[in-house]
Amino acid sequence: MAMGREERPDNGLPAEFGFIARVFRPLAGEGALDLRDDAAVFTPPAGRQLVVAADAMVEGVHFLPDDPADTVGRKLLRCNLSDLAAMDATPLGYLLTVSMPPARDEAWFAGFAAGLAHDQRQFGITLLGGDTTSTSGPLVLSLTVLGHVAPGMALRRCGARVGDGLWVTGTIGDGAMGLLARQGKVADPDGFLAGRYQLPRPRLGLALGGIASAGMDVSDGLVQDLGHMARESGVGAVLHAGQVPLSPAVRALGPQWLARCLSGGDDYELLLAVPPEQEAALQRHAARRDVSVTRIGQVVAGCGVRVLDENGQDMPLARRGWSHLPEGARDQDSSDLS
Amino acid sequence: MAMGREERPDNGLPAEFGFIARVFRPLAGEGALDLRDDAAVFTPPAGRQLVVAADAMVEGVHFLPDDPADTVGRKLLRCNLSDLAAMDATPLGYLLTVSMPPARDEAWFAGFAAGLAHDQRQFGITLLGGDTTSTSGPLVLSLTVLGHVAPGMALRRCGARVGDGLWVTGTIGDGAMGLLARQGKVADPDGFLAGRYQLPRPRLGLALGGIASAGMDVSDGLVQDLGHMARESGVGAVLHAGQVPLSPAVRALGPQWLARCLSGGDDYELLLAVPPEQEAALQRHAARRDVSVTRIGQVVAGCGVRVLDENGQDMPLARRGWSHLPEGARDQDSSDLS
Repeated sequence: MAMGREERPDNGLPAEFGFIARVFRPLAGEGALDLRDDAAVFTPPAGRQLVVAADAMVEGVHFLPDDPADTVGRKLLRCNLSDLAAMDATPLGYLLTVSMPPARDEAWFAGFAAGLAHDQRQFGITLLGGDTTSTSGPLVLSLTVLGHVAPGMALRRCGARVGDGLWVTGTIGDGAMGLLARQGKVADPDGFLAGRYQLPRPRLGLALGGIASAGMDVSDGLVQDLGHMARESGVGAVLHAGQVPLSPAVRALGPQWLARCLSGGDDYELLLAVPPEQEAALQRHAARRDVSVTRIGQVVAGCGVRVLDENGQDMPLARRGWSHLPEGARDQDSSDLS
Repeated sequence: MAMGREERPDNGLPAEFGFIARVFRPLAGEGALDLRDDAAVFTPPAGRQLVVAADAMVEGVHFLPDDPADTVGRKLLRCNLSDLAAMDATPLGYLLTVSMPPARDEAWFAGFAAGLAHDQRQFGITLLGGDTTSTSGPLVLSLTVLGHVAPGMALRRCGARVGDGLWVTGTIGDGAMGLLARQGKVADPDGFLAGRYQLPRPRLGLALGGIASAGMDVSDGLVQDLGHMARESGVGAVLHAGQVPLSPAVRALGPQWLARCLSGGDDYELLLAVPPEQEAALQRHAARRDVSVTRIGQVVAGCGVRVLDENGQDMPLARRGWSHLPEGARDQDSSDLS
């Protein structure tokens, strides 16, 4: 595409090709054709459905300009893998587009790619393709992840039924507190919280397709995301704030941060609706992957989310989650798209 | 993800959900689950390989800030469809991430989506998923397209053989001249050139898998892209500048623009290497889709691209194509990644 800078005429090749070769080609898998063609080609796993998701991250919005380059790459990948985990899918590979400001040099991207390489090994996936462009604005990263799932077994948000228990994996609020720690607003003596903000842990491989009746990942605030699940399922939900699992690092900050933990983003834990008769199976599957699961509430008739404190009283929340749009595109509409 | 703006507390839902519902949900296909879940789920066509590609477009780099919103959406989609056409693949669907500056309001995105809706109908595809974020910089759009192809039949860049003829579809240089026309640098009385810059025509459906020995789409300049094909195939190429098909609108601008047409971007035509015995089949397949094809040179032993003028003399070219990276990430390396 045109309007970019002209190539340097000294070798007949734009420098972007050398950059891509050095930085990104080592990440490419078999189907990516070494990133030498216009597209990647691969054979989908026989008898499986495909699962695809895309997320973008913008410098200054989803990560801090001075976050380590390797964690930026890994966070981007892990946020997308978390979307696959929410559907109980197995990852296959990913595509990446990078819109680069002049201030980010190749050394930064080498670190970024090293982070991706690390996580590719950890999660058993490879880069399938992508694109690099320049931008005069902040760094923008967009990643599309592909995975697969047994036909009809993908977890959905819309399947929660009255009587189901509500469960979460791991601990809630670490990401939100980690952002505050990175901004110097709360203490984080051992860097645990900052680490949780910078490196989500996608809860892949729990094999919950036949166990949970609904599932999603918690990325924009637990209460808000639970509201999405309730709305899509046509039910209400009760959340017991005192049962929400908190890490020792968050507990050490004091109870005044609880509301923030319930509405902060960047958890990347799974929220699950599980019928009582499946609770033992849930705990067995989670233990197999060394993932903690905690019951935090229940699905009820009606609509909306009630958040109850330890005395069973409705807990006031100044906000329930996060939005990512500029003011011009926002309004008072209460459409239920999640 | 956090660090975005907080939701408006008045209705318990971030305004982005209403925006997405109004603007993007009408584009969603069956597998997209109405964009209500974390990912899309679909069953890949039986017995086919999948083909995936991703391209990003940045305001001020790949399109002009005042380009009509509908053509920006359509150009983004068509650039990606052109990558599928280059592999002889059939499109299935796409994912889209949008990083929005505050200055673009919902009316702009309504136009953007209307363009996508138009082209979805034209090309028989739907939106599978995506993400919207805010950015303080220019608008960044990233699109991943999925398609399918018969096993082993995807066209590659690396298959050109000595003796093949080199062919292109359509006409070359309209996009580059269209950009100049949009910038007021050349005349474009009927808007044909600007239209070609704003709306590429992906050459899908030519069914060239068994006919061409190599193929790619011309997006970054014909001479440079031919260089990629030659390098990947381990051959040289001779290009007869006088045989390169030009539109009447480009011819009317005068011969001084020829070099620019050979090195300008935004053609989105196919470059094909075709053995002599397949030329009749090529012409038959192209005629079936009402696409012109023109022989512009031949594959030769050796390496590099020679561009010959009408007298058979080497034609000097100030540049061969375009690069899209900021200065920091560029260098003198001549790696052969395309």
